[in-house]
Amino acid sequence: MMEANAETGNRTEARAPLIAPAIVLVRPQLGENIGFAARAMGNFGLRDLRLVSPRDGWPNDKARAAAAVADVIVDEAKVYDTVEAALQDLNFVLATTARPRGMVKEVLSPETAAPALRARALSQERTGVMFGGERNGLDNDSIALADAILTAPVDPEFASLSLPQAVLLFAYEWRKAEKPEGLGRVTAFDGPAQEGVAAPDTRPATRAELFGLFAHLEGALDEAGFLKPPEKRPAMVRSIRNMFHRMGATDQDVRTWRGIVSALTRRSTPPRA
Amino acid sequence: MMEANAETGNRTEARAPLIAPAIVLVRPQLGENIGFAARAMGNFGLRDLRLVSPRDGWPNDKARAAAAVADVIVDEAKVYDTVEAALQDLNFVLATTARPRGMVKEVLSPETAAPALRARALSQERTGVMFGGERNGLDNDSIALADAILTAPVDPEFASLSLPQAVLLFAYEWRKAEKPEGLGRVTAFDGPAQEGVAAPDTRPATRAELFGLFAHLEGALDEAGFLKPPEKRPAMVRSIRNMFHRMGATDQDVRTWRGIVSALTRRSTPPRA
Repeated sequence: MMEANAETGNRTEARAPLIAPAIVLVRPQLGENIGFAARAMGNFGLRDLRLVSPRDGWPNDKARAAAAVADVIVDEAKVYDTVEAALQDLNFVLATTARPRGMVKEVLSPETAAPALRARALSQERTGVMFGGERNGLDNDSIALADAILTAPVDPEFASLSLPQAVLLFAYEWRKAEKPEGLGRVTAFDGPAQEGVAAPDTRPATRAELFGLFAHLEGALDEAGFLKPPEKRPAMVRSIRNMFHRMGATDQDVRTWRGIVSALTRRSTPPRA
Repeated sequence: MMEANAETGNRTEARAPLIAPAIVLVRPQLGENIGFAARAMGNFGLRDLRLVSPRDGWPNDKARAAAAVADVIVDEAKVYDTVEAALQDLNFVLATTARPRGMVKEVLSPETAAPALRARALSQERTGVMFGGERNGLDNDSIALADAILTAPVDPEFASLSLPQAVLLFAYEWRKAEKPEGLGRVTAFDGPAQEGVAAPDTRPATRAELFGLFAHLEGALDEAGFLKPPEKRPAMVRSIRNMFHRMGATDQDVRTWRGIVSALTRRSTPPRA
């Protein structure tokens, strides 16, 4: 489903749901690649898949299998005979190609295209991105139907972005553009990809807990004769303490280290007859 | 092969070539996916492909075919029996997983990970990113060997990033990070941005040094009976290793800890008459 646009509720035109771009695959060859493209779409919030004359017909079992959990996107894909038919309802269309081939068109990267399409979608424009078939990419006639060109910054020496890879990069940037203020910091979903430190059932150790550990460890090290000579002791102690600070020790970590120190030193008091 | 570091002879570290991250595929299954991953690497300037126990053996014709023009990356891939062996020369390693699964580690997105690794590479650190096999992803023991977690902001409803797709997103962001003005935010590109390294004459520990410390410490703890009961040992070991990774241990830190373990355990062999 499309995202609701709750945060811009005071702008009337923004209250309608944002319509994410359509992904238009023009004469794709392998069913697997259609499925992989659908999977890439699903991962990053795109749902509207359109196919122009898929070589191996439609429906295609291989496409469905390759889509994995995104098979619903394959099931709901629309099939057209011509590029023109597939683009009918769209207001703004990008053509993906590595080679602009002499056309005077604006060239966008995925990174710049995604927010540009999002801005148009927020204004209730319907947008789409065309991708060509595996062998030759988009033909010039299809490119000519687009408003601008989308191209990824690939290494010219290895330029070989596959169809699903190209879809993935656009979809990924589309998702990132959802929260422009949060680029790179906050993800759009509340799920597993939040940045920060993954710390289940733990909390940062208090200074009291850390100091208790320091006293325990340093006491053991003094007894073991490790913190010598005396004039070097302060620097050695600081260095060890700094390591614990740098690791961002949790309460559980402190308990673990106290257990380690106890275990290693417990061996030093062998039973005496 | 790693790039030669020919220009470092005159100690002008800013002039030394930057060493791009290694891509480490841990127990990958399908040759096609290895090839697609190599292709994604080639598109965005990565060359160092490492394979840990590929399921179908090596070399693999399907990998070569899927790599297309990036077949040279497949041809030069290095194969290892264990994750530890594949990481030996690396200073900073990310583990790709959607599910941090109870580990206390920093979590980065491709967008934040790429400039972070680039900053380290500019400081002559060797970096790498691990990706797990198609079926289950990275196992916890492999994740525990990493400094931080890499995860993409996928839609939880469709979370299904394939192995080559995950490699592609990282490679793409690595390429984008090459031109900081294209990132839209400030990053530390002008020089070393090593966190947690205070003394100028230290460097981040290599994985070989850390693994040596782990063996030393865990051996001592086994002997002390600390890592019990046996069914809890793997989780305890991972937790301890993660703490060292989080602290960003230097070579000096590793020496310090080996000294600490030796000192605390030396007391356990009192002179006997």
